[in-house]
Amino acid sequence: MDHIYIALIHYPVYDRQGRVIATALTTIDIHDLARLARTYGLAGGYVVTPLQSQQELARRLTDHWVKGRGAVYNPTRKEALSLVRMADDLEGALDGIEAERGRRVRTVATAARRYAGARSYEEMAGLLQKKEDGPYLILFGTGWGLTQEMIEGSDYILEPIGGKGYNHLSVRTAAAIILDRLLGRRVR
Amino acid sequence: MDHIYIALIHYPVYDRQGRVIATALTTIDIHDLARLARTYGLAGGYVVTPLQSQQELARRLTDHWVKGRGAVYNPTRKEALSLVRMADDLEGALDGIEAERGRRVRTVATAARRYAGARSYEEMAGLLQKKEDGPYLILFGTGWGLTQEMIEGSDYILEPIGGKGYNHLSVRTAAAIILDRLLGRRVR
Repeated sequence: MDHIYIALIHYPVYDRQGRVIATALTTIDIHDLARLARTYGLAGGYVVTPLQSQQELARRLTDHWVKGRGAVYNPTRKEALSLVRMADDLEGALDGIEAERGRRVRTVATAARRYAGARSYEEMAGLLQKKEDGPYLILFGTGWGLTQEMIEGSDYILEPIGGKGYNHLSVRTAAAIILDRLLGRRVR
Repeated sequence: MDHIYIALIHYPVYDRQGRVIATALTTIDIHDLARLARTYGLAGGYVVTPLQSQQELARRLTDHWVKGRGAVYNPTRKEALSLVRMADDLEGALDGIEAERGRRVRTVATAARRYAGARSYEEMAGLLQKKEDGPYLILFGTGWGLTQEMIEGSDYILEPIGGKGYNHLSVRTAAAIILDRLLGRRVR
């Protein structure tokens, strides 16, 4: 799955009142997403935030585990966190991937509610297997989720996880479930 | 799935050197596990630790969201965290469930490596659907995982998640993937 990337979006996302905000970084999310990226053999994971101080924090964290003492203490963290990159915004992440792959990126938005034209996990899993159509970037929103504009502007929208009317998972666990539904058959 | 419980085990588990330890509580794990329990319609989630100060911390956290100001601020957290109970050890959790259900509990251990007799997700998912054989308690280890003794003493052992040789997910994300593989069809 080395033609697939993920992005943890900190802006633009909603807060609980539906206002568009930039959320603060959660370091545990970076660890969890990096380890998921490594588990599913992804090409990389972007931390997207316009806040330079937050990018600096993320960079210090990844440097510790990739180049610093952490790399010796726990090499499996190094393997995971070396997949993490930073971008100011979605366009920055797309530019980074396109520079690396020389091809247009197709984006896949995730959402806790059902959008018109949303793809099932089965359908999306099939699309993702066609390497020649990639690279793909799967977008995960922090806070109360990606803005409607970002979701509707993406190439594909995924159906929600479900959950009997309860759609309040953390972005960490939602990303885990979504990646496993899309790519789990490949690692089992 | 109201005949299925989960337990987050803080003792006995391994540390990275393979010593048996009690890990410290991670409050984010309690939130994530509770929200997973609610998402998959589980009967409850146990936080298992012999450390009374840690139980007290967990109780303060759940009280805040279930009875305190948090319940008003965010009712969806209340829904999730009201599923959380505390136990000193595995036996305490089993006693609690058996008192509630009047039936012997069957335990399902999760592990990052493959044990003899491990069940596939498909097989275990089929077994879990037989309500009449329950209740079931699925065990998740913190730290470097459940002890061999606890795993081999359980009624069922699940196969590992996989991951192309990389088995270093957080317990939060591992639990999300495992619950979805076992119960995901029921919530989609």
